[in-house]
Amino acid sequence: MRNRSPRPETDFAALPTVGQSPLSTAQISGRKTSRGFVIELPLTSHDAVFGLGLQLKSFNQIAKKKTLRVNSDPIADMGDSHAPVPFYVTTSGYGVLIDTARYATFYIGCATPLQKRSADDKGDKTNLGAFTQDLYVDKSVEQNKRVYVEIPHASGADIYLFAGPDMKNAVARHNLFSGGGVLPPRWGLGLWYRGRADFGHEEFMKLADEFRQSKMPCDVLGFEPGWQTHSYACSYVWNREKFPDPKNTMDALRQKGFHVNLWSHQFTHPASPIYQQVQDFSGSFEAFKQGVVPDLTLPEIRKIYADHHDREHVAIGASGYKLDECDNSDFIAFPWSYPEMTEFPSGLDGEQMHSLMGTNYMETIDGIFRARNLRTYSEVRNAHALCASYPFVLYSDLYDHNDFIRGVVNAGFSGLLWCPEVREGASEEDLIRRIQAVCLSPQALVNAWYIKNPPWKQWRYTENNEDKFLENFAQLEANCRKFFELRMRLIPYLYGAFYQYYLKGIPAFRALVMDRPQDKETYSVDHQWMIGDHLMVAPIVAGKSEREIYLPEGEWFDFWTGRKYAGSQKITMPVPLDIIPLFVKAGTVLPLATVTQHTGDEESLKLDVRIYGDGHLPATLIEDDGTTYDFTRGQLNVVTVSGSGVPAQIARVGQYQGPAYSIQTTTLIP
Amino acid sequence: MRNRSPRPETDFAALPTVGQSPLSTAQISGRKTSRGFVIELPLTSHDAVFGLGLQLKSFNQIAKKKTLRVNSDPIADMGDSHAPVPFYVTTSGYGVLIDTARYATFYIGCATPLQKRSADDKGDKTNLGAFTQDLYVDKSVEQNKRVYVEIPHASGADIYLFAGPDMKNAVARHNLFSGGGVLPPRWGLGLWYRGRADFGHEEFMKLADEFRQSKMPCDVLGFEPGWQTHSYACSYVWNREKFPDPKNTMDALRQKGFHVNLWSHQFTHPASPIYQQVQDFSGSFEAFKQGVVPDLTLPEIRKIYADHHDREHVAIGASGYKLDECDNSDFIAFPWSYPEMTEFPSGLDGEQMHSLMGTNYMETIDGIFRARNLRTYSEVRNAHALCASYPFVLYSDLYDHNDFIRGVVNAGFSGLLWCPEVREGASEEDLIRRIQAVCLSPQALVNAWYIKNPPWKQWRYTENNEDKFLENFAQLEANCRKFFELRMRLIPYLYGAFYQYYLKGIPAFRALVMDRPQDKETYSVDHQWMIGDHLMVAPIVAGKSEREIYLPEGEWFDFWTGRKYAGSQKITMPVPLDIIPLFVKAGTVLPLATVTQHTGDEESLKLDVRIYGDGHLPATLIEDDGTTYDFTRGQLNVVTVSGSGVPAQIARVGQYQGPAYSIQTTTLIP
Repeated sequence: MRNRSPRPETDFAALPTVGQSPLSTAQISGRKTSRGFVIELPLTSHDAVFGLGLQLKSFNQIAKKKTLRVNSDPIADMGDSHAPVPFYVTTSGYGVLIDTARYATFYIGCATPLQKRSADDKGDKTNLGAFTQDLYVDKSVEQNKRVYVEIPHASGADIYLFAGPDMKNAVARHNLFSGGGVLPPRWGLGLWYRGRADFGHEEFMKLADEFRQSKMPCDVLGFEPGWQTHSYACSYVWNREKFPDPKNTMDALRQKGFHVNLWSHQFTHPASPIYQQVQDFSGSFEAFKQGVVPDLTLPEIRKIYADHHDREHVAIGASGYKLDECDNSDFIAFPWSYPEMTEFPSGLDGEQMHSLMGTNYMETIDGIFRARNLRTYSEVRNAHALCASYPFVLYSDLYDHNDFIRGVVNAGFSGLLWCPEVREGASEEDLIRRIQAVCLSPQALVNAWYIKNPPWKQWRYTENNEDKFLENFAQLEANCRKFFELRMRLIPYLYGAFYQYYLKGIPAFRALVMDRPQDKETYSVDHQWMIGDHLMVAPIVAGKSEREIYLPEGEWFDFWTGRKYAGSQKITMPVPLDIIPLFVKAGTVLPLATVTQHTGDEESLKLDVRIYGDGHLPATLIEDDGTTYDFTRGQLNVVTVSGSGVPAQIARVGQYQGPAYSIQTTTLIP
Repeated sequence: MRNRSPRPETDFAALPTVGQSPLSTAQISGRKTSRGFVIELPLTSHDAVFGLGLQLKSFNQIAKKKTLRVNSDPIADMGDSHAPVPFYVTTSGYGVLIDTARYATFYIGCATPLQKRSADDKGDKTNLGAFTQDLYVDKSVEQNKRVYVEIPHASGADIYLFAGPDMKNAVARHNLFSGGGVLPPRWGLGLWYRGRADFGHEEFMKLADEFRQSKMPCDVLGFEPGWQTHSYACSYVWNREKFPDPKNTMDALRQKGFHVNLWSHQFTHPASPIYQQVQDFSGSFEAFKQGVVPDLTLPEIRKIYADHHDREHVAIGASGYKLDECDNSDFIAFPWSYPEMTEFPSGLDGEQMHSLMGTNYMETIDGIFRARNLRTYSEVRNAHALCASYPFVLYSDLYDHNDFIRGVVNAGFSGLLWCPEVREGASEEDLIRRIQAVCLSPQALVNAWYIKNPPWKQWRYTENNEDKFLENFAQLEANCRKFFELRMRLIPYLYGAFYQYYLKGIPAFRALVMDRPQDKETYSVDHQWMIGDHLMVAPIVAGKSEREIYLPEGEWFDFWTGRKYAGSQKITMPVPLDIIPLFVKAGTVLPLATVTQHTGDEESLKLDVRIYGDGHLPATLIEDDGTTYDFTRGQLNVVTVSGSGVPAQIARVGQYQGPAYSIQTTTLIP
């Protein structure tokens, strides 16, 4: 099931030509069983395998058994995920998509078919393990490995193969097949802050002023459940006690440079004006308390949803939504979602709907903005196959920082974006380390939905809600501001990287292995990522004062000190609390924006350019209106910033006539 | 699928008569879907629900969604278990068994069918939760609750209802239907110690002497994988380098009062002498490295297995086995088991086989001993429905002490026994707390399979294996010895309690709620358990110096101090490191054995009797040979120890003529 078409064939033409299918049909088999359908695919003994969606607990999927079950609290490495995707790529340079919305189980080189032996074949000597680490056979070294995929209840499945010839191009091809990557609106790349769930007009206006006064950049304010009259389940109706005139609130915030994002979910409360229209087209079980589950695969239901949201929220200024709880719940004390056995009017069952709920919800909501020729950048808690073109970032109620970092790295294999959101901190250090990482991720979000004040004033939950600020909060605020400002400086670069994602399908945020599948050292690097082609970040978590960093082939400059490092080595670097390790590829021309309080301030178009080494890697920036789809119709300039000496050069191709980048300073970093 | 018959109808006659079925057929419905089969059962709004097998993460199953998937590393509360059992009991006093080996999903009062509403029904006001704890609707308070069971791939299922009239009798009925509970051999109730996996004859003889010299009671020594020539997968052949004459080793140990238990698993290595016989009757996938998975549901394969084990191990003195890895693996780095899609010659698939593997393995192994008129007490890592009559105790590689304690409490609802085994300690305190709890559990086992020396000499793994003992180890050893000796003193009482399990199906170890389903306070007591009818234990975990204890209705004596407490109250008790809270019901006549180094020493039949209060609750003890099934054929005395003054009285009914209990001292505790 898909809502969107692949990009036109001409867009694929930019990718390298591959003469033949990466796997022959003889190498792939499938068979119906009493349980469903089983697919067998080959795997070479040297393959590393990545993908399967938002896998928070592991990176290389070799020797893993993963069941792609949609789940809101995936606490074990068994495949459960907010966004499982039945797609994997191998270091041999191809991708495989199994077209199913079932909770398929992937055995990646860890299922060995029975091999009959003659009486004189006594097998290998096995390990008389006296110690746990001796016990488990490293199946990754076995020959004749295979991938098995078992799809429950199915009688067949389409298999799509994506040629490379290398991993990055296989991923790119998959993303173009999905409709191409996302170019967020410029404001989406700024800082995001979600206020406490019970905040109304007064609190948000106060918060907005506080941000501007304290010079903490911010582009987006998020309204959590309290904006609705009913939530958990939802009415989609403004709570007029908190927001007497929501248009006025959003206008006032827009004037201060803020966009507004609205929390919501799809479970519809009896008090909602659309309830009577949707209840007959809903699943056979309810979710949360009294919430019906409308079948958004049905165009007429989608239209009811979209029309209401358009008229009541978007028409008066909302810029996006946070689509909560469209995944599923199993692990928690009171599971709130509908069972897999639920029956939907479209014929889907609950299992299939869990897999597709986020996709259809995104399609519904994104459609509102597209119809208005507006780009949104929004949040969502479920995605699945072929979602690359949806301008939605995944998030979670989980909070392990290592997992959150791995999420950034892994999401890029499967056409997903992931936000390692910051809520409170376990300590000042934890807060800073989280702020650092999120500012170098697809979405720089602080989600303060249950604390009254920004966490840099008080990272402790209780004291924060009692307005008891840290004595040194100004210092902590300043440290956080440093990374907010770093984010603002990087926006031209990020926007350019996302344009490559849109145009060519190359993820703006991606694992090192995607560019270097021949370099086996990268197969385990799940705590560093590339941003675009020229930046590499190596975040660090609380409790550590140094970390090991892998520098791939080439030379790398420390962004903060300008120190040059040889590549193809691991270094161990002390990381003081005011630093996140960030490296620039030698030769890079790196344009940095002037820091502003939000992206709407045109001062941000003035660039300070750094030229690292010989400057043989120019920057490609994009100029457009930043908010509409006119860029897809020619209203776009491709801007090249290049040079090896002072001043750097700027050149543009295109017919966009609006505000333009200019070079303010140039610095050589030899 | 079942291997064993229910107990004869006459055995059920001892239970209270119930006039009618606890649920009418009109209250139960089932229907075939494209996914399998869905069963709907009623639930009253005041019901608490327990069972579903070895659930380590939760107690009352109300508002839980549980998928009964067999798994070796159940780290989340989602139903995964070594021993999931599709059986639950409610406080309304009945039990429900769904006869399926599929990974069925139980929705216990947490799935709400769609309820169509009129336009003027605006539903309830929902909670605008600003704080996480506000968000989740407590579905336990909802009316019209139901239990749904979804069985994948099935087209129907038999449902068995067990009347009470109360919870304890419903459980008892279920256990009798399973074939009745277990009466372990007396030696099985003594202390168990498993030596390091690479130990051979020399090391075990040295270990045996060390136990006797240091006066640490011990009845069973366990040999871990090193006794076989091949392990992971297994040959079932003695490693003659380590054990040049295994019969001699076992004879020598038996002379010192030790029984021997052999680790094994069912995955058969090509070097095994039975490999050629079983490989054609094995599953279509291998497990571990080169291990075939014989189909032990086939009688001819069971016979090949049993004959080999009988001839090579049992005939020369082995008293039992530890049946490892008959569950399944998903979570760990290198899953070692066969996939659910595996096909077996019997027609079962891998999912069904995972559910039934432990049962059939137990049937095979227990059959060896039964054929020799010997009782075993053994270990197993998987069980399922109707397993009460198998003399096997479940265990795990997990190690959370709170979960281990909850396991003791929960296992009793489903005809299971569970051992909260002690391996190393995280600290001296942790070691002692674990020793305390395991000594008051179904199996008092120290599993030192990866440490060279007993953990009370050194609880740290590395130092232990380097023979670096704690400076104060004698003191730690003495503290552990105190609880080993407590175990030995309780064996007559435990043996009597297990006889009630055998005879009437009443679990020897059980949750407080099982005796008091009207007392809602017990619905959350998952860290205390009853031993028999008169003792209640409240273990404590490391890091706590006091704990809250619920004392049910009646009066209770502190076992250690003799202090009397009123019941129907919660007390908070300081718990010094040399104490595990243990309470005796007022009126109890408690016979305690003389401490011996093993159960074979007849000195242990001399009893010190304590009379708590008025002594209106006499003790029922059992005399028999302690090792055979002759007790089922009349070779048994039922011994009553009673009295309210000094000396206590002893009386016996029966025709067993062997060694007999006698009263040594009587103490009144007023």
